[in-house]
Amino acid sequence: MTKMEPTEFRSAIRAIGDERYHSLHPFHRALHGGELTRGQVQAWALNRFCYQSAIPRKDAALISRTTDVGLRREWRRRISDHDGDGENDGGIERWLVLTDAVGLDRDDVKELRGVLPATTFAVEAYVHFVRDKSLLEAVASSLTELFAPSIITERVEGMIATYDFIDDRALAYFSHRLDEAPRDSNFALDYVVEHAETAADQQAVIDAVYFKCDVLWAQLDALYHAYVAPGHIPPGAFEPADHATHEKSP
Amino acid sequence: MTKMEPTEFRSAIRAIGDERYHSLHPFHRALHGGELTRGQVQAWALNRFCYQSAIPRKDAALISRTTDVGLRREWRRRISDHDGDGENDGGIERWLVLTDAVGLDRDDVKELRGVLPATTFAVEAYVHFVRDKSLLEAVASSLTELFAPSIITERVEGMIATYDFIDDRALAYFSHRLDEAPRDSNFALDYVVEHAETAADQQAVIDAVYFKCDVLWAQLDALYHAYVAPGHIPPGAFEPADHATHEKSP
Repeated sequence: MTKMEPTEFRSAIRAIGDERYHSLHPFHRALHGGELTRGQVQAWALNRFCYQSAIPRKDAALISRTTDVGLRREWRRRISDHDGDGENDGGIERWLVLTDAVGLDRDDVKELRGVLPATTFAVEAYVHFVRDKSLLEAVASSLTELFAPSIITERVEGMIATYDFIDDRALAYFSHRLDEAPRDSNFALDYVVEHAETAADQQAVIDAVYFKCDVLWAQLDALYHAYVAPGHIPPGAFEPADHATHEKSP
Repeated sequence: MTKMEPTEFRSAIRAIGDERYHSLHPFHRALHGGELTRGQVQAWALNRFCYQSAIPRKDAALISRTTDVGLRREWRRRISDHDGDGENDGGIERWLVLTDAVGLDRDDVKELRGVLPATTFAVEAYVHFVRDKSLLEAVASSLTELFAPSIITERVEGMIATYDFIDDRALAYFSHRLDEAPRDSNFALDYVVEHAETAADQQAVIDAVYFKCDVLWAQLDALYHAYVAPGHIPPGAFEPADHATHEKSP
């Protein structure tokens, strides 16, 4: 294993998106293609809230691990982007505007009632990864944001065009992320290029991006299984009013 | 909330099995009913190894948290049951006899190559639960073993009858568990009945059993989605030679 040049290393990281990012998942394609029922969109919005609301915890875990003031200052902005700051409501509040728009009860969402256990397991795996792996891997696991702008554009256009219960205001979360995600991911990419000193470090960065793609992919697998086909909702999970299933779980 | 009498509390715990234990899952029914292909049985055996092999880590985490010598001595037997001790090969080695019998490469299995990310997330959620929750909840999360004897009997009979690549020897893991599981779960049940001092403690015990049922159920959901229907194997996961899918993931 030899160490890659920075340009090659950057390309290797970006290439993972083409192969593994959840924009390739059938659930994403159905969502942005307007093929889902309102209940399926509700299930997605509810479960995705579980992910969104855990992000500040994982970012705080990263900050708690480093003595580098510059990294801490830069990373702190991610927390305020999600939790809000003064005039800015923050991404979590904006996500609740979306769950309101699709007709979910705000208290149910905030309490994560009916979230799929598989979602929680994937999300907490991400929090634990950032807490327990090397700082380099923790930073690297955020790099899936490099791939986010294209998925966001697709999703926003597809959703506004096809779901009459979703409008621009409901999707304000995504328009903010279009500014925040590139800023954050460019910083993180420069960071890992600078701090991956050996070929093994570079491989650890790449593995961290794969891991994070798995975290995102597994969430869509669980949604697909429970709410699309075959539509086996696990016991205790959210049951949409319009849910049709071929084979109901007990 | 009022505290239950011991008999009522025991019944409440046992009732969870009838409602939530993974013996009710369509994948289990297909497995013990002999409806699966060899590749689907391979996928189950591989992913279940990920779970089995993590059990001694979660049991050691529990032991590391208590100053009660009696509890530590009792619980230590669970580690030797899995990791082996002298003449006894242990449950992990016996599981490898099963993965050999279904035609998997032993090194691939031991390295967990191709295990579904969702399996790993569920398994590690269990390890973290035992590490991070109260000792009472950690002990309680083992109580799904109360429900194991019936599932084991069903599984062993169904599998020997219908899969020609599985025989008694391959299923030695389960015959050992038929002795070990009741001994362990009776101890744990007595422990939680004695140590749950308040109604809130009893509720925490019940929630821990629900949590553990979710851990087991989510593993079968992921297998079903990837290998039965629709058969979307996540990128990088094990691909059985006989896999047929209606809609292939990229």
